[in-house]
Amino acid sequence: MTAYEFITTRRIEFSETDMAGIVHFSNFCRYMEHAEHAFFRSLGRSIVDPDLGVGWPRVHLSCDFKKPLRFEDEVEIHLLVSAKSSKSISYQFRFRVDDVEAARGALTVVCVRRNEAGEMKAASIPPEIADQIEVAPADKLAE
Amino acid sequence: MTAYEFITTRRIEFSETDMAGIVHFSNFCRYMEHAEHAFFRSLGRSIVDPDLGVGWPRVHLSCDFKKPLRFEDEVEIHLLVSAKSSKSISYQFRFRVDDVEAARGALTVVCVRRNEAGEMKAASIPPEIADQIEVAPADKLAE
Amino acid sequence: MTAYEFITTRRIEFSETDMAGIVHFSNFCRYMEHAEHAFFRSLGRSIVDPDLGVGWPRVHLSCDFKKPLRFEDEVEIHLLVSAKSSKSISYQFRFRVDDVEAARGALTVVCVRRNEAGEMKAASIPPEIADQIEVAPADKLAE
Amino acid sequence: MTAYEFITTRRIEFSETDMAGIVHFSNFCRYMEHAEHAFFRSLGRSIVDPDLGVGWPRVHLSCDFKKPLRFEDEVEIHLLVSAKSSKSISYQFRFRVDDVEAARGALTVVCVRRNEAGEMKAASIPPEIADQIEVAPADKLAE
Repeated sequence: MTAYEFITTRRIEFSETDMAGIVHFSNFCRYMEHAEHAFFRSLGRSIVDPDLGVGWPRVHLSCDFKKPLRFEDEVEIHLLVSAKSSKSISYQFRFRVDDVEAARGALTVVCVRRNEAGEMKAASIPPEIADQIEVAPADKLAE
Repeated sequence: MTAYEFITTRRIEFSETDMAGIVHFSNFCRYMEHAEHAFFRSLGRSIVDPDLGVGWPRVHLSCDFKKPLRFEDEVEIHLLVSAKSSKSISYQFRFRVDDVEAARGALTVVCVRRNEAGEMKAASIPPEIADQIEVAPADKLAE
Repeated sequence: MTAYEFITTRRIEFSETDMAGIVHFSNFCRYMEHAEHAFFRSLGRSIVDPDLGVGWPRVHLSCDFKKPLRFEDEVEIHLLVSAKSSKSISYQFRFRVDDVEAARGALTVVCVRRNEAGEMKAASIPPEIADQIEVAPADKLAE
Repeated sequence: MTAYEFITTRRIEFSETDMAGIVHFSNFCRYMEHAEHAFFRSLGRSIVDPDLGVGWPRVHLSCDFKKPLRFEDEVEIHLLVSAKSSKSISYQFRFRVDDVEAARGALTVVCVRRNEAGEMKAASIPPEIADQIEVAPADKLAE
């Protein structure tokens, strides 16, 4: 099974709001990561896989906020794979409420493996994973 | 150096508030733990000490909320050691703003060590730590 | 429709874990509140209801932690109404993974209304809500 | 008093780490905002000022992560004002531990005011604030 996109929804929780009455922007990081991990589950995997022994630290993050999210909003998070190299994956995330885009984010993660000294070093994405993930078509990403 | 209490202050951050305009109650857990770890630092220690190899999972938590905390409040957190056994420590926490008690919490943590199977099992508190921590006088705790 | 219990499940997220490899205990507060708000939704309500104009600050919290929760665990949260007065509601929460109880918590919330000075004051629970919520049978609570 | 930069430090808390043993990336959002609000306090202001009646929603966020932050690290956060328009301010943030840059972030916030319908609309930055904040010299920003 290969895939270049994944869609999930979640309902905004009270603890995710701030005194401005809207979702605190730090939570968009959690939402992006949630979609990334659900994407892996949709491929029959877990992002934490002791057999493979790799980790996925984040190296780049960006987000444009267009409309605030509010308590109990049902948010659709649309993940698209925007780039893939031998050692990293980039994702695009679109947040929509009632079909209106509320935010658009991007995340680049790098595959790492611990060396003998216990340090995390960039490593090739295990082929089992690399084979399952492809880059979304350019027109999809440009929408 | 031995001690049975510790006082620290922190300023409430925007990200700790919720749409009711007050600190979300989950943050009191973070504040208690912050005081516990600062207490250990005041003893010249870190709660995470690879040489000792013990962990401190929480087994009991309680908190009474009296007055809400608000953005930029400067909160005094007063930690008192309320009980100590061979394998556990209990703390009392008093939260004050402008000398008015806003909340009072309690936390019991147990000392654990990983066994050969990698499971965390209750273990005796290392003597280096046990010797530094004493129970606060009863009248202090009853205030 | 009246009810005295509600069951929901959620999957543990990476951002909810800490460096001990388990769920940080502050998240149990978020999980309890999540269940409380989903309980209200199951009654056709929202905990934030501008028509009723009441708020529900937390006045007492407690939790006993028995087994750690881990990344991607699917946790069942069982809410039971343990007490109800004219101005407050108490809940019991049981957290289970694979039918094993991982934690048991309790929360008391009080109904408040803003007075003319803008201060939140304890107020009678609106009858629309009070009529929908009943206390769970004693044997259920004692299980 | 006018300023184009501000430096603050904070110690990494246990609750900010994740099961990878490092600070969860969502916390960098909280750290940036903390520095922004401390910057305002350094100018004798609060970001929440009922007299001025403006809010500061985030419209753009980015961050490059270079080295992980760990429990009890003392992090220096260096805020620089990178741009200012009539209705928005952009900040650059540099995170350093032991003089090594661990991350570099950017945040653009827009000044808003509620209209009669209660909606937040972009508004001119109040002159009291605009007069206190200037853009950092280009060579400082390019470092």
